[in-house]
Amino acid sequence: MVKVGIVGLGLMGGSLSLALQQHSKDYYFIGLDHNQKHCSEALALGLVDEVCAGLDRLQECDIIFLSIPVDGIISVIQKLDNLKKDATVIDLGSTKEKISLSIPSDTREHFVTAHPMTGTEKFGPSSALPNLYKDKVVVLCDLEKSGDYQESVAREIFTAIGMNIVSMNSKEHDRHAAFISHMPHALSYALANSVMEQEDSQSIIALAGGGFRDMSRIAKSNPYMWEDIFRQNQTNLIEAIHSLQSELKKCEKMVERKEWNNLNEWMTKANTLHDILD
Amino acid sequence: MVKVGIVGLGLMGGSLSLALQQHSKDYYFIGLDHNQKHCSEALALGLVDEVCAGLDRLQECDIIFLSIPVDGIISVIQKLDNLKKDATVIDLGSTKEKISLSIPSDTREHFVTAHPMTGTEKFGPSSALPNLYKDKVVVLCDLEKSGDYQESVAREIFTAIGMNIVSMNSKEHDRHAAFISHMPHALSYALANSVMEQEDSQSIIALAGGGFRDMSRIAKSNPYMWEDIFRQNQTNLIEAIHSLQSELKKCEKMVERKEWNNLNEWMTKANTLHDILD
Repeated sequence: MVKVGIVGLGLMGGSLSLALQQHSKDYYFIGLDHNQKHCSEALALGLVDEVCAGLDRLQECDIIFLSIPVDGIISVIQKLDNLKKDATVIDLGSTKEKISLSIPSDTREHFVTAHPMTGTEKFGPSSALPNLYKDKVVVLCDLEKSGDYQESVAREIFTAIGMNIVSMNSKEHDRHAAFISHMPHALSYALANSVMEQEDSQSIIALAGGGFRDMSRIAKSNPYMWEDIFRQNQTNLIEAIHSLQSELKKCEKMVERKEWNNLNEWMTKANTLHDILD
Repeated sequence: MVKVGIVGLGLMGGSLSLALQQHSKDYYFIGLDHNQKHCSEALALGLVDEVCAGLDRLQECDIIFLSIPVDGIISVIQKLDNLKKDATVIDLGSTKEKISLSIPSDTREHFVTAHPMTGTEKFGPSSALPNLYKDKVVVLCDLEKSGDYQESVAREIFTAIGMNIVSMNSKEHDRHAAFISHMPHALSYALANSVMEQEDSQSIIALAGGGFRDMSRIAKSNPYMWEDIFRQNQTNLIEAIHSLQSELKKCEKMVERKEWNNLNEWMTKANTLHDILD
């Protein structure tokens, strides 16, 4: 029996348990969440075999996942001690540099810092999905600082649940993630608020089609989780927002100056993203 | 047999035929498209019973749909003549004020200007979907200028294919559409281009998850169609872009100044959009 500790029984932690249960019956899950309702829900949904109140029980775990907001991850990392000799601790935070730097050097080899590029705008144990991780990318960062054994455990687990592994250093990751995930969240929140600010917002929203629904979906995301991410990736996020602002300004100017051919070219260039993306 | 003319055999026109065919066997479809490949595809796919080369054949139609880019709609409207006494002409353009104003007063009662709030980023006859219109909103504009009979024909048809009808004046429509559809398209194009502009765009795009895919989906949209829409709704579009820029600037400043509580409140406000939207 492999004992798996899951700190944070929300969308990411819950889905991970469901995915691992599909893969093998050999796991025993010990869950931990500061929200008591989440603990009972996770038990009722079969996401964990038991829940515990403090970090002490993690000392008997072979693998520990930290699936809580990024500030929480840094705080829990400082408190983990007396880990099993071969324990592997994998955090699933959306930012990586500050987390990686926060790990004490004497326990560094136990840790693998990972960012699964998946999620939904939902949260809590009831949002867990067995296929959330399947066919998605997971970024493993600063692997040279992890123990060889711990790296192999992490690779095995992410492969088992169907993920494609990419590795890079945490600095590079945070810059990339700002463009592909964090800034788009800022944009979606801004879009939602720009419509809500209009006098006749209700009549406007009544006309929403698929495009607007897609663009505003991630504006449902949890503010506490995203406040943390924005805080931890402040500099890169601002750079990515500036880049977006500059493109939007180009568009605005072309429309204002009636430069329709240039606008068409700009849109055609945007089309080419999908030659790479799909 | 009701003779239906469809000018423009792309996503919108093709899907309309599929929807009407599901509703009744009583329609005979005559199609028209300046693209010969679209004509043969539409015939092969059963979207139309026959295709014709010029507008003359529309003189025998009971109902005519104009499902072409908005500049094309204005041009075709000027050329339609000798319509059947009770003919109903329905244009499906994404902007409405300029189209409505362009209709000659002596034939005005034949026309119903409509904007179905649906679509996908795909185009051409092969992108047609039988349920594209189902459970979506269609906005009918300036109905006081349409004949009573023509209004009733339009209402019947849109109801038959499962749409929810909203009516408003074309000026109001164009402002609403700028916020709920046109500006979000500008935003999606800007997002795609801001990532494509990065030195390491390929590595960034390799990390794309569901959020980015959703936000960039409509950046696949046809530049020729959207150039027209941006041209026809220039003033409202610029206003909507300014509103978005102002919200994004707020976000940027809060992140820069580390005003995390304010940022959290701003995100929480964005969350409330979905109390109205869902």
